[in-house]
Amino acid sequence: MSFCDGIMFETIIPKAPIVKQADIGLIGLAVMGQNLALNMLDHGYRVAVYNRTLARTEAFVAGKEANSGLIGCHTPEELAATLSRPRMVLLMVKAGQAVDDTLELLLPYLEPGDIVIDGGNSHPGDTRRRVAALAEQDLLFVGCGISGGEEGARRGPSLMPGGNTSAWPYIRPILENIAARVDDQPCCRWIGPYGAGHFVKMVHNGIEYGDMQLIGEAYHLLRVGMGMDTDQLAELFSRWNVGPLNSYLIEITGRILGVKEPGGLPLIDSILDTAGQKGTGRWTGIEALEFGTPLTTISEAVFARALSARRDERLRAATQLGSLTGPPVKADNNSVAAIHDALYAAKIISYAQGFMLLKDAAEAFGWHLDYQGIALIWRGGCIIRSVFLNDIAQAFEADAGLESLLLAPFFTGQLGKSEAGWRQAVILGVKLGIPLPALSSALAFFDGYRCSSLPANLLQAQRDYFGAHTYERIDQPRGTFFHTDWDSFAPPHKDRHD
Amino acid sequence: MSFCDGIMFETIIPKAPIVKQADIGLIGLAVMGQNLALNMLDHGYRVAVYNRTLARTEAFVAGKEANSGLIGCHTPEELAATLSRPRMVLLMVKAGQAVDDTLELLLPYLEPGDIVIDGGNSHPGDTRRRVAALAEQDLLFVGCGISGGEEGARRGPSLMPGGNTSAWPYIRPILENIAARVDDQPCCRWIGPYGAGHFVKMVHNGIEYGDMQLIGEAYHLLRVGMGMDTDQLAELFSRWNVGPLNSYLIEITGRILGVKEPGGLPLIDSILDTAGQKGTGRWTGIEALEFGTPLTTISEAVFARALSARRDERLRAATQLGSLTGPPVKADNNSVAAIHDALYAAKIISYAQGFMLLKDAAEAFGWHLDYQGIALIWRGGCIIRSVFLNDIAQAFEADAGLESLLLAPFFTGQLGKSEAGWRQAVILGVKLGIPLPALSSALAFFDGYRCSSLPANLLQAQRDYFGAHTYERIDQPRGTFFHTDWDSFAPPHKDRHD
Repeated sequence: MSFCDGIMFETIIPKAPIVKQADIGLIGLAVMGQNLALNMLDHGYRVAVYNRTLARTEAFVAGKEANSGLIGCHTPEELAATLSRPRMVLLMVKAGQAVDDTLELLLPYLEPGDIVIDGGNSHPGDTRRRVAALAEQDLLFVGCGISGGEEGARRGPSLMPGGNTSAWPYIRPILENIAARVDDQPCCRWIGPYGAGHFVKMVHNGIEYGDMQLIGEAYHLLRVGMGMDTDQLAELFSRWNVGPLNSYLIEITGRILGVKEPGGLPLIDSILDTAGQKGTGRWTGIEALEFGTPLTTISEAVFARALSARRDERLRAATQLGSLTGPPVKADNNSVAAIHDALYAAKIISYAQGFMLLKDAAEAFGWHLDYQGIALIWRGGCIIRSVFLNDIAQAFEADAGLESLLLAPFFTGQLGKSEAGWRQAVILGVKLGIPLPALSSALAFFDGYRCSSLPANLLQAQRDYFGAHTYERIDQPRGTFFHTDWDSFAPPHKDRHD
Repeated sequence: MSFCDGIMFETIIPKAPIVKQADIGLIGLAVMGQNLALNMLDHGYRVAVYNRTLARTEAFVAGKEANSGLIGCHTPEELAATLSRPRMVLLMVKAGQAVDDTLELLLPYLEPGDIVIDGGNSHPGDTRRRVAALAEQDLLFVGCGISGGEEGARRGPSLMPGGNTSAWPYIRPILENIAARVDDQPCCRWIGPYGAGHFVKMVHNGIEYGDMQLIGEAYHLLRVGMGMDTDQLAELFSRWNVGPLNSYLIEITGRILGVKEPGGLPLIDSILDTAGQKGTGRWTGIEALEFGTPLTTISEAVFARALSARRDERLRAATQLGSLTGPPVKADNNSVAAIHDALYAAKIISYAQGFMLLKDAAEAFGWHLDYQGIALIWRGGCIIRSVFLNDIAQAFEADAGLESLLLAPFFTGQLGKSEAGWRQAVILGVKLGIPLPALSSALAFFDGYRCSSLPANLLQAQRDYFGAHTYERIDQPRGTFFHTDWDSFAPPHKDRHD
């Protein structure tokens, strides 16, 4: 800027003349960003948009769905100048470095009290850092989990905002308006401070990994273990979709299995069996390991995707190691019901583990999470939406301090009814050599969770033997530690492990 | 230092008079540090020792096992002054901040070419950082995994040094001398650059978690599922210890089960079933999630410890959810052999997954790991020492580029022989409600690994349905991506998940 730019000339050469005022700014016009902008327009908001590539902004503003409430901006500065105060800017850029880069471009044009919302799948740790950093400049940062994909963004997503609590009254009306609605309640609630919103979104995604893997295993058992064809399976999943498994994922599974190629063959049979993944499922497993939460089912789902990706190695292994160990069994009512029950029971375990992780995180970070509310906002807009989430919400409504979903009377009862079929299905997979990592891991967790006497006593004895790590006793108060000189009880040590 | 300190006066007021020269310095005199110092003394090295608390240094130097080769130092400066050049200093302090703190105290007294060895269980990422940081000062940093606990440190540990490769010729003689020996070979080899040594040690510890959990599950099945008593089990494990399971951990399990309380009851039954853990097992699972390595068995072992630690919750769950679903079965030769085979087969899987993680790390970091060598140095000194490691070494000797242990002809054969018993044992646990997270997860991995057609095709279809993530086809080249408008094949979408 030269010396001549300034007040003297400003009436002659106006800088970015403000002809309109926008209610909210949005940066990043990939599909999710575009659809959220259109969603806001539908609700009567004036939206200022900016994208790094100008051509995309121009095309979007000129698009057939756009209307006069949409204001294209050439720079972050122009975007900031267009917004009413306090400013609200929603970032829809790629999680990671791009968020920090965008903040660096935007922050010079913001003022104390302005609000920045990150709508990407950011790591909760990054969000925590950004909330603290922006607070030092009196700016309010919010990490908002947004679930539902492109369609959810356009018609109503599930929203999980968390971060600087002072921002909530300002952003609440618009977020609640654009969110999905179930029972006339918006699928949007304030989750908690710092990274709480993105943490809950991360666990949501982990649960989605678990659901998808469990459905895949049930499909594998039915298709290969019982020889059902895709038409039968399409019909079966659509039938399951009117029972306790009723959910978006079961519904689309039924539809997918009904789709044929032009030649009449099932499309599913031509799709390559190598699953992709983004980071959130993996992060969920990592956080569980960090917190010491036994989140086995989702972790197995993440590992199953990793194994599927090693397809060439699997093909070589199939040749060398053989595969199925027996012929399919008959798909009678009993065996099909067993698989239904296995899927349902393992789903209960997976969600119980997910909420266990939320509880452990809440305790570690000092959050006060509303578990009922979290279940309620997952009922609409998002990929895991299901009737099941109503049951979870009711369990937490009945007992806000519920220690575990498995201990809610409703779920205890459901597990009791499903248990026999669950064991039958897992045994079938083990007999036939059909891999059921998530279904069987969930069962092992269930049996471990209700086990009053695990073999960890032997493990503690081993650790005391080789490392003098000490152990506690069942007949002494916790926190009293004992060590045994184990070798003195046995004949002299003689190694031959080599 | 005043102006008068210097050459002029040095014969009159000698600074830290060097009466002895030491071959190596050691900082940190907890049990591991003390035992390594004594081990070095046994081999004729002169060892200068320093501990933050002076009293410990003094007590150690005056101890009955110490000899004239041991030189107690009051400060890091004195330690540095005592050492021959290039200096070698072994840090035996707690992993984490204490390593950086100690480096800060020590570095001012070191000169270019000097060597610092970190013998703790440091995170490989920390070691990577320290190697790079010290290299900038022309100092050679080595992260050396040390396995074998107190006894190993005293009599001969397994050593896994990695880091600045220029250090190896200097530290090699002493490390090889103090290491365990098997077949007259030292259990010590140079692993690779940067964090390679600590990474391999971390995976070693993860494998140890897996071994211990698998033994615990076998014990649980035998004890509760077949009603065997501890005397029978002590005898059984000592019998197993002369077969393919022969290993330190099987040996001490037999000994532990034979130990009685003063009143004659088995000590194992009084030990609390809550397993402790340090960080390395958890880290192994986290690294596997980061690399996308399907390391299921060790991860289940880590989660099983986490579940065991929630004992109060388990006791409440046992009351509400019930426990065993059936009476014990008869412990005949067939059923006991099945459990033996399950333990052996799952152990093969666990090690195969551990080496898979090493391969993935090596590829990501550009390391050239000698897998045969790694198996060889684990045969002695450490907790996982076993005859089994000889078989692994032989598999890599026969084929250094072996894709997976499971594809080595020897292990393919062993799995074939063990498979039926493995399935029988897992089915028994599922029937009786005895949790077998690691045994069953290993089996699910085996069945998935040799599965040419996983249900990941359904998963890809789901992802394409709800997120337009696209999929590949089995009849088209990899890297060609397809998208289907799934809804166009089905009746109009109608949700009722709420």
